[in-house]
Amino acid sequence: MVQPVVIDQSAGGAFLRAIGAILPGVTLLTDPLDLEAYRRDETAYLEPPPPLAVALPTTTAEVAGLVRLAAEHRIPIVPRGAGSGLSGGATSVAGGLTISFMRMNRVLEIDRANLVVVTQPGILNAALKRAVAAEGLFYAPDPASTEICSIGGNLGTNAGGLCCLKYGVTRDAVVGLEVVTAAGEIVRLGGKTTKDVAGYGLIPLIVGSQGTLALITEATLRLRPTPPPKATLLAFFPSLIAAGDAVSALAAAGVEPCTLELLDRTTIRAVDDDHNLGLDRDAAAMLMIESDLPGAAATRALELAEAACLGAGAASTIVAADQAEADMLRQARRLAFNSMERLGVARMEDVGVPRGRVPELLAEIERIAAEQGLLIATFGHVGDGNLHPNIILDREDPDGEAKLGRATDALYRAAIALGGTVTAEHGIGVSRRDYLELQRGSRALAMMRAVKAALDPLGILNPGKVLPDA
Amino acid sequence: MVQPVVIDQSAGGAFLRAIGAILPGVTLLTDPLDLEAYRRDETAYLEPPPPLAVALPTTTAEVAGLVRLAAEHRIPIVPRGAGSGLSGGATSVAGGLTISFMRMNRVLEIDRANLVVVTQPGILNAALKRAVAAEGLFYAPDPASTEICSIGGNLGTNAGGLCCLKYGVTRDAVVGLEVVTAAGEIVRLGGKTTKDVAGYGLIPLIVGSQGTLALITEATLRLRPTPPPKATLLAFFPSLIAAGDAVSALAAAGVEPCTLELLDRTTIRAVDDDHNLGLDRDAAAMLMIESDLPGAAATRALELAEAACLGAGAASTIVAADQAEADMLRQARRLAFNSMERLGVARMEDVGVPRGRVPELLAEIERIAAEQGLLIATFGHVGDGNLHPNIILDREDPDGEAKLGRATDALYRAAIALGGTVTAEHGIGVSRRDYLELQRGSRALAMMRAVKAALDPLGILNPGKVLPDA
Repeated sequence: MVQPVVIDQSAGGAFLRAIGAILPGVTLLTDPLDLEAYRRDETAYLEPPPPLAVALPTTTAEVAGLVRLAAEHRIPIVPRGAGSGLSGGATSVAGGLTISFMRMNRVLEIDRANLVVVTQPGILNAALKRAVAAEGLFYAPDPASTEICSIGGNLGTNAGGLCCLKYGVTRDAVVGLEVVTAAGEIVRLGGKTTKDVAGYGLIPLIVGSQGTLALITEATLRLRPTPPPKATLLAFFPSLIAAGDAVSALAAAGVEPCTLELLDRTTIRAVDDDHNLGLDRDAAAMLMIESDLPGAAATRALELAEAACLGAGAASTIVAADQAEADMLRQARRLAFNSMERLGVARMEDVGVPRGRVPELLAEIERIAAEQGLLIATFGHVGDGNLHPNIILDREDPDGEAKLGRATDALYRAAIALGGTVTAEHGIGVSRRDYLELQRGSRALAMMRAVKAALDPLGILNPGKVLPDA
Repeated sequence: MVQPVVIDQSAGGAFLRAIGAILPGVTLLTDPLDLEAYRRDETAYLEPPPPLAVALPTTTAEVAGLVRLAAEHRIPIVPRGAGSGLSGGATSVAGGLTISFMRMNRVLEIDRANLVVVTQPGILNAALKRAVAAEGLFYAPDPASTEICSIGGNLGTNAGGLCCLKYGVTRDAVVGLEVVTAAGEIVRLGGKTTKDVAGYGLIPLIVGSQGTLALITEATLRLRPTPPPKATLLAFFPSLIAAGDAVSALAAAGVEPCTLELLDRTTIRAVDDDHNLGLDRDAAAMLMIESDLPGAAATRALELAEAACLGAGAASTIVAADQAEADMLRQARRLAFNSMERLGVARMEDVGVPRGRVPELLAEIERIAAEQGLLIATFGHVGDGNLHPNIILDREDPDGEAKLGRATDALYRAAIALGGTVTAEHGIGVSRRDYLELQRGSRALAMMRAVKAALDPLGILNPGKVLPDA
C-alpha cells in the first residue's frame, strides 16, 4: 500500500535548503503572496492550503533532481500546468512542493516526415496548434480552454474537447513520453513509431493519471495533415428531448460529424448576450454540427444532418454563410464557460453517459435543478455523451457550497445510474474522488491502488488526487 | 517482485482433482493427444512443452473458479484464443493450465443506439465483423488473419491490421472490459461510455498485456456506421526505395488513405502464383492504396495518390475496375502469409519504425537477407511504418533455427536502431522477450515488472510471456 506522507514542518525547511544547495539554478518561490497564485485551479469552491513552495524548473534534469530530493525528504509533489483544470488536480497540498512546468514550454521538433511533434509540457494547447499549423499540420485534441490550458495538463487529465468525436482524445495522440518517476529517474516511453506493442501500455496508463504515477517532462504527439475547412450547421429545438432525439437520428443516418455540440437555453442566451450572434433565444436547445469532409462530401453530410434535425423536430436550422461566421460561432461555444461565469459562480461539471442515454441525462439534470432550486446551464460534447452542466451559484449565498455539494452528489449518482461517468474529460482530481469507488467498484479501485503503490511506493506524487484516502 | 512459480508435479494432480470436484461442469482435457493441439501457435520454430491440462470454460464464473484454484495451488495459467498468434503468447507452459476461450464465443449485445457491441472473447474477428455488419455497423480493427483470429487474442496483443492508419488499433476500440484478476476476482472496467477519465487507464494497460495482468472474459467494443465502399489503387515500382518515397509523397500531399500496404517482389510473385491476379511480376514493389471517403472525395484522393506514386517513380498504376476486383486484391494481400508458407517454413516478423524511416528499414532487410544468405519476403502496413519481413527457411535445413536466430537478431537491432520496435502488432510473447529491455531500456522494464508484481503477485498469469526472466 501507499504510505501516507506525514508532513513535518522542519522537514520542509531542510528540503528547501537542500534544493538551494543542490539545484541552485531552479527558481523557487516561497513568498506567501507568490504561493497564493499557485493554490487553486479553475474549480469553483476548492480552497486548498498554500504549498510549502513552488519550483519553476526549466529542464528535465532539474525536475528529476527535485523529485529525488522530495523522495529523500518525503515531501509531496504537485505537478502543475497552466492552472486551468476543473477537478482540482493541480491544487496545492499542505507542506508540498508544487512544480510548475510553465517554463518548460518549448516545441522541440516538428517532424513532418513522421507526422509528430516533440514538445515540452508547459506549452499552451493553442500555441502548439499554431506552431504546427505554420507547417501545414494539425494537432487534433481540442479542449474548449485551448487558449489557456497546457499540453501537460491535457496529458494529465486525458483531455478531450470539441473534435474527439472524429479525432479521439489526448491519449490517442500520444506516441512517446519522457517521464520522471517517483524515484526521480528519467524514463523514455515510446518514441515516434505509431504502432508499437512491445511490453505494457505504460503511456496510456500514465496519460490521465494526473501526475500521481509519474511526471511528464516531454511528449511526442501525433499530427495529421490539415483537414479541409469545416462546414457548420446550427439547429434550434423546442425541447432538450428533441435535440437528444436528433443526436440519435444523426447516428442512424450514418452522419459522422467532426463536431456535435449541444447548448441549452441558458447557455444560448448567455453566449448570445456576450457575442451578439443573433441566435434563437427562445429555443430550448441548439445543436452545432460540423463536418470537415472534403468538398461536396461536407455539404452532403450537413444536408443529411439538417434532415435528421428537422425530422426530430428542429424549429429552424442555419448553415454558416462562410468560414468567418463558422469560426465566430465555434469561438462563442468555446467561451461558453466564460459567459456562464458572468451569471454567478459557475461550477462546471463533466458527466458522461453512453451516447444513446443523453436524453435521460438531460432530464435528470432538469430534475436536479428543479429539486435543488438551482440554475444549471448545460452545454457539451453531446456526440460523445459528454455534458457539462454548469451549476450557477450566487456569489453572496453563504449556503452556496452546501447547495453545490447536494447538486453534484445528485448529478454524479444520476450519471453512474445511467451507466456513465462522473468525469468524461476533466479528471477525478480532488473534487470527485469520493465518487470513484461508487463508479468503478471496490475491486477496480483496489487494482488502481496496487498500480499506484507499485509506481509511487512512498506516495509522494500528487497525494490525495485521483484515489480517495484508503 | 513476482515470485517464480515452482512446478511441482504432484501439485498438478491435486489441482486437477480440485477442478473436477469444485468445477465439475468445466471440460478438462488431459489426454496427451488432445494437449498436443494446444501447445503451439502459428509462430514457426517454437516448440513449447505440452501443458498440464486444457480447460474449456463456458462462463466467466468458471474462469474465475479456475483462476482461484490455480492461485491456491500455484499453477501457471495460459489464456488462449484461436491459436493464430505470431509471438508465442498462447503457447503452453510446463505444468500449466491452458484456458481456451473458444467456447466463450457469443455476441452478447449489438447496441445500435450506443454504437457498441458486447462480446465474449472467443469469437473470431471476422465473425464479429459479420454479426455487426448484418446490423449496418462496422467493427474496424482488421488483422489480415481476420478469419482465423479471435477477439480475445486481438485484445491480448492489441492487434492492428490493414485499416489502423485511419481507424486505429484494437486498443482504440475498447470501451469496456470484464476481467478475471490473478486472485480470481471478476472486475468490470468501463462500460458503454465513450469518454471516461475516472481513475487510471486500466483498460489500455490490460489490452496488449497478453494475459499476463488479467484474463479478459468480455469486451465492449466501439462500432461505426458502415463506411462507403473502398476505391482501390495499385502502383508498381522499379525499386523498394521508390515505393518508400511514394509513401512520404502521399503524406506530403495530405492524402490519408484507409489502407496503405506494401508488397515486395517475392510477395507479389507468391501472391500472383496463388491467385492469378495479373500483377506486374517484374516490379520490385507494389503499393495498395485505398480510400473509403464518400463518393467523389475517394476518386480525388486516389488521383492525388496516383500523382504522388508516379512522381516517386512508379512504372505503372491500376485502379480496381469494381468492388469485386478490389475485394479480390485485398483478399490476396490478406492471404500473403499463406502464399509465403508455400515457399518453405515462413517466420513472419513484425518490426515497426517511424513512418519516414521505412526506406531505411527496407534497405536493412535487404542487407540482412544478403548477409545471411536467406530469402526474406516483405509486406506490411507501410503507412504505419509496420513491415512484416517473412524469413523463409528450407524445411529440411538442420541449421534453420540457428539461421533464423541470426536473422531476427539483426532485424530487431536494426529496427531499434531506427527508433522503432521489434513488434508493432503481434506482441512480445515469448519469441521477442529477450529484446524488450534492449528496446525499452532497463528503467521502463522495471516499471513494467512493478506493474506485473502489483496485479499478479504470485506470477501465475502467463509466466514467461512478455517480460524476460529477471
